[in-house]
Amino acid sequence: MSVNVAVVGVTGVVGQEFLTVLAERKFGFTGLKLLASSRSAGKKIDFMGETYTVEELTKDSFKGIDIALFSAGGAISKEFGPIAVKAGAVVVDNSSAFRMKDGVPLVVPEVNPGEIKKHNGLIANPNCSTIIMNVPVWPLYKVNRIKRIIVSTYQAVSGAGAWGLWELDEQIKAYAEGRPIVKNKFPHQIVNNLFSHNSKVSENGYNEEENKMVWETRKIFGDPKIMVTATCVRVAVPRAHSESINLEFERPISVAEVREILRSAPGVTIVDDREKNHFPMPLEASNQDNVLVGRIRQDMSREDGRGIEMFVSGDQVRKGAATNAVQIAERLV
Amino acid sequence: MSVNVAVVGVTGVVGQEFLTVLAERKFGFTGLKLLASSRSAGKKIDFMGETYTVEELTKDSFKGIDIALFSAGGAISKEFGPIAVKAGAVVVDNSSAFRMKDGVPLVVPEVNPGEIKKHNGLIANPNCSTIIMNVPVWPLYKVNRIKRIIVSTYQAVSGAGAWGLWELDEQIKAYAEGRPIVKNKFPHQIVNNLFSHNSKVSENGYNEEENKMVWETRKIFGDPKIMVTATCVRVAVPRAHSESINLEFERPISVAEVREILRSAPGVTIVDDREKNHFPMPLEASNQDNVLVGRIRQDMSREDGRGIEMFVSGDQVRKGAATNAVQIAERLV
Repeated sequence: MSVNVAVVGVTGVVGQEFLTVLAERKFGFTGLKLLASSRSAGKKIDFMGETYTVEELTKDSFKGIDIALFSAGGAISKEFGPIAVKAGAVVVDNSSAFRMKDGVPLVVPEVNPGEIKKHNGLIANPNCSTIIMNVPVWPLYKVNRIKRIIVSTYQAVSGAGAWGLWELDEQIKAYAEGRPIVKNKFPHQIVNNLFSHNSKVSENGYNEEENKMVWETRKIFGDPKIMVTATCVRVAVPRAHSESINLEFERPISVAEVREILRSAPGVTIVDDREKNHFPMPLEASNQDNVLVGRIRQDMSREDGRGIEMFVSGDQVRKGAATNAVQIAERLV
Repeated sequence: MSVNVAVVGVTGVVGQEFLTVLAERKFGFTGLKLLASSRSAGKKIDFMGETYTVEELTKDSFKGIDIALFSAGGAISKEFGPIAVKAGAVVVDNSSAFRMKDGVPLVVPEVNPGEIKKHNGLIANPNCSTIIMNVPVWPLYKVNRIKRIIVSTYQAVSGAGAWGLWELDEQIKAYAEGRPIVKNKFPHQIVNNLFSHNSKVSENGYNEEENKMVWETRKIFGDPKIMVTATCVRVAVPRAHSESINLEFERPISVAEVREILRSAPGVTIVDDREKNHFPMPLEASNQDNVLVGRIRQDMSREDGRGIEMFVSGDQVRKGAATNAVQIAERLV
């Protein structure tokens, strides 16, 4: 079977990671088309022993393409996603453009792989913080329904794009060299600081990132009743999001049960060494697909044994974006 | 009235801040004795137009002292606190040595100032994260009892002492200059990373810092039934702790009510500009006494209107330690 793949937004952080993950997972493509804006067109990219030329994304880019991996922002997805579908491709879209749209599967392969086949040409890749939370929470949910999630995040700058990484790096160097710290795109200084997630705050006081964690989790779990509240914070970390997660279960659950379930859960690695004070950290979660889970303990603010606290770190460029999309593509083939 | 003050541990981060705060608040002392370990004895410190010589802390240091501000660690407090009391001083102790001891008031002046007069020579200054949480939560609690608090922290390195600041700074410079990043006292790299609070993890899976937030809040609020769960995390921030706080009230409460209460609450500044995405940040909370409070919103994971989410930042060296102790001393005079 021949599979022609297009990567849209190949010069971005996630676009680059699409290539890394396709190679690592030995994704069996026949042809590969690398697409980006006119600014990047003509750029050469060496990949798996071949040299590819980045092409400008146009209406005619998708002829003969079977699978298009999009990560070029919501506006590009809205414009070119339907064009790619019309040309016969299945689009796996990393933007938020179609995630909450009826008829568009929103998929974390460890959670709801059955949704993939229901697509009408478009499959949405969830928000990175949502994926990182859903991977370890779902296997617990399956055993003992979770009624409520209270999450606070510690999000890496690369979640904002390559410029976020550059901005942190530049501010670190400015600070170290005693130069003035210049803000470019982030609304506030990030080195030696942290701030509420830099997405628009909506009417209800939650920002877009937080609303995504709430609404997307409901859709992915297929449970419109699960209650979620999130506080999303940007921290001075280059890569991998961390999350402090408080879970309320339907029935009592023990730490031992949680460990037992997570030990065999796909996409999860338990890092929970109380003796050595060694728990999930972004530094160790970076550049791997598994979500690290630790600090697993009985919530001492409940007397009914229905609460669990845990802390997770996951690479939002990989499992939070590129790996998740490629996993979906694998199941399409 | 003559008031002779001793500062124990004057060369530490909090010790230095004791002096800054005493000067700022024009604390009317008659005499001032600066005490530290033999290592620092003989060091000169210029303060309010005078030059003081640091003296070695000994059993005889407290003759004639009325108020002794201690911040030299639990072991020093345990050994020298009772000696100072026997010599006639009232000790305001910033360590955890006596906080949970019966008969020792544990005081946040904005919360339970009435406890101060019940002292038997010793008054304990609460844990920094606890103070920063208690200042904005108490005025809400007074109006509508809070039954449960779920908190996740983003704690500055200086909470660990001057060496924490030095270690972050050194790692930032090493990273910027491309040198290897060396861990000294923190168990893990802090630049470009974060990790679970570096205190011992106890039997219940909570670390000491988290247990302090739970137990101290109960004692300060005088409410053994208030349920608290905390997740404490160290982040790459030099100064000021931030906390994501989820509150469950006895009765429904609105965002408008919370704002109204906090607007006139002592020690609180509301920073909650949704339009400009401007909320509490450690950079802005540093070097001031008030706790910044923002991200105030109705908890969307509850349908009964009894939940509030908020995010706070407070300077843990000032209000979390030195300022709180000096405020107690002011009320003693």
